[in-house]
Amino acid sequence: MNPELLISTRTRLTPFSSRVEAYGVKAYTVYNHMLLPAIFRSLEEDYWHLCEAVQVWDVSCQRQVEISGPDTQKLVQLMTPRDLSQAKYGQCFYAPLCDESGGMINDPIIIKHSDEHWWLSIADTDVMLWAKGLATGFGLDVKVSEADIWPLAVQGPKAEELLARIFGNEINKIGFFRSKELNYKDSRMLVARSGWSKQGGFEIYVNDEKLGGQLWDDLFDKGKDLNVGPGCPNLIERIESGLLSFGGDMGYDTTPFECGLDQYVSLEADLESLSIDALRNRQAKTRLMGIVINHQVKLKDLRLYNGVRDIGVITSNTWSPKYRAHLAFAKCDINSIAEKQEMHVISSSGKVPARITELPFNFESLGLNSLNSK
Amino acid sequence: MNPELLISTRTRLTPFSSRVEAYGVKAYTVYNHMLLPAIFRSLEEDYWHLCEAVQVWDVSCQRQVEISGPDTQKLVQLMTPRDLSQAKYGQCFYAPLCDESGGMINDPIIIKHSDEHWWLSIADTDVMLWAKGLATGFGLDVKVSEADIWPLAVQGPKAEELLARIFGNEINKIGFFRSKELNYKDSRMLVARSGWSKQGGFEIYVNDEKLGGQLWDDLFDKGKDLNVGPGCPNLIERIESGLLSFGGDMGYDTTPFECGLDQYVSLEADLESLSIDALRNRQAKTRLMGIVINHQVKLKDLRLYNGVRDIGVITSNTWSPKYRAHLAFAKCDINSIAEKQEMHVISSSGKVPARITELPFNFESLGLNSLNSK
Repeated sequence: MNPELLISTRTRLTPFSSRVEAYGVKAYTVYNHMLLPAIFRSLEEDYWHLCEAVQVWDVSCQRQVEISGPDTQKLVQLMTPRDLSQAKYGQCFYAPLCDESGGMINDPIIIKHSDEHWWLSIADTDVMLWAKGLATGFGLDVKVSEADIWPLAVQGPKAEELLARIFGNEINKIGFFRSKELNYKDSRMLVARSGWSKQGGFEIYVNDEKLGGQLWDDLFDKGKDLNVGPGCPNLIERIESGLLSFGGDMGYDTTPFECGLDQYVSLEADLESLSIDALRNRQAKTRLMGIVINHQVKLKDLRLYNGVRDIGVITSNTWSPKYRAHLAFAKCDINSIAEKQEMHVISSSGKVPARITELPFNFESLGLNSLNSK
Repeated sequence: MNPELLISTRTRLTPFSSRVEAYGVKAYTVYNHMLLPAIFRSLEEDYWHLCEAVQVWDVSCQRQVEISGPDTQKLVQLMTPRDLSQAKYGQCFYAPLCDESGGMINDPIIIKHSDEHWWLSIADTDVMLWAKGLATGFGLDVKVSEADIWPLAVQGPKAEELLARIFGNEINKIGFFRSKELNYKDSRMLVARSGWSKQGGFEIYVNDEKLGGQLWDDLFDKGKDLNVGPGCPNLIERIESGLLSFGGDMGYDTTPFECGLDQYVSLEADLESLSIDALRNRQAKTRLMGIVINHQVKLKDLRLYNGVRDIGVITSNTWSPKYRAHLAFAKCDINSIAEKQEMHVISSSGKVPARITELPFNFESLGLNSLNSK
């Protein structure tokens, strides 16, 4: 049983809040000063449903930091060490934002509308304030604001079929991390093949509060035979899939390299980016690793031990009903990872052995077979 | 009944979280990515206890944005239109932070430790990111970080007596919005006569996680005969007292003048402040007003009507058990305020008359006598 959340105007509602409530939301979290549903039936029921059917998620809290004006591309590139010079309309870029020390500020999906008009679809920090500060200080010719956009994610193996019923066959032509503007009623909305699960699906960048409610209702009307249901980012699924949460698994004190995001840093490119020098030179101190425990545990504390020494801290953990193992992410001291000593955690019933592994989890090499693959 | 809150590492615990839970917290909110207790017994029981006894509040979420280095004073002054040139060690300054358009970014209490070392004790936005962006862009010689400080507030009419039992008579010498470093065990902690209620009290800037837990226990041990209890910022008390919540009652789109914070803007001073020109020239579009309804209502929507027209939006509201009236703040169209027409709101049972008044509420002139004033 979780404690209650006292909702106020500060923890903002979304255009879908009345639906979310009517569909029986049990728990929320707060994300970018906005309500984000966290549980509908139970974590585990929501999980199986997401893996097997299709869910509609109110992820309005993925706020769009909108940057426009002649210096837009310059500002965005200053903020991220990922080379965006070849970015084209219709692509989505997952990109760490980093400061001069190489520490991460956020990990948005970056969307280019045109040279002078970009969105950063952000995780849970006020990126707008950083962008505004930089723009002011550097005297850049840009406008930085939070756009009136409320993303609605449709996730799960049957997401594509459901969305094709709403938007037509154009849906099938959208590649992974690609987007298209599609018609809905009299409006055009950006639809991307993306989302915070590995079950497949789309994110619809809803740009009209009233149409948003209609779209929600349409999705449920047209998806009955697909067993459509309400859902939300699911702790179990995202840990199994190795999806990281900014503010939990990574933060201001970690570099992209320490979180396994090496591929999103363009070390070799000739970039005007605030963090690139630091990232070329800074030594990694920690590394985010996967932890596997053979049975379900209630952790007494979040430390990971190597023999007697505390060598890491668990940042997220869950029981995986599919792999019948307790899975965790842990921020580990980089010098202690290679030692191959026995690891353990402390559960409410004492010391429990734990295995350490690279992320994302490779369940086959870990000897874990999924329950629904026989 | 409120929905549940799913707690994760992203919604950070505090050094007092185990105590808060042991003392029976019923509801939280999330503030600066950290848990803030919102209800212990019930809003109304917590309210009366706060007005009559003394409460210990875990307000760790009032994070300290720490700025240090030669250009500290310059950066802080850029961020606020309040003249801080005469600021001295030992004073606390409530100050709006505003951007180039005059819009508010936050409303911290600013504390000067020395010319080169300041704290901003912030409301719920990532001020650190704005400060970092400005510092980088302007090339200022400062370090900006979030300090390991967890404020603990002690509020209520018996707060002073309780704190004198912990810190000695030095407590009595601290003036309103003044601070002193006092001894606790082997440590020195900043203690200020301040806090987010009008019942009197102090904020202790706890700088040691372990000592923090001891201090909490000490306060409860030494305060038994004062009826000390756990508490938190209380919706009823803060609305009666006219205390505004950033992100609810004011935000990026409002100027200090629109929120009645005129006295904290130094329009006449010769300041190097980002917002001062805009604030000298920008016309107020809205004004935050007090709303009084003669009996308890459940609002159907948050609009305030003047005849048939919608002229404002209610930002916070509560039943006041002391004044037996329903009180609210409303962001009103500035041109409609003076019209003195009949106002109303829509409750679940229909149209309800409402009076509009300046803030803070003047209950005597409103003809409202307090229940416990005889």
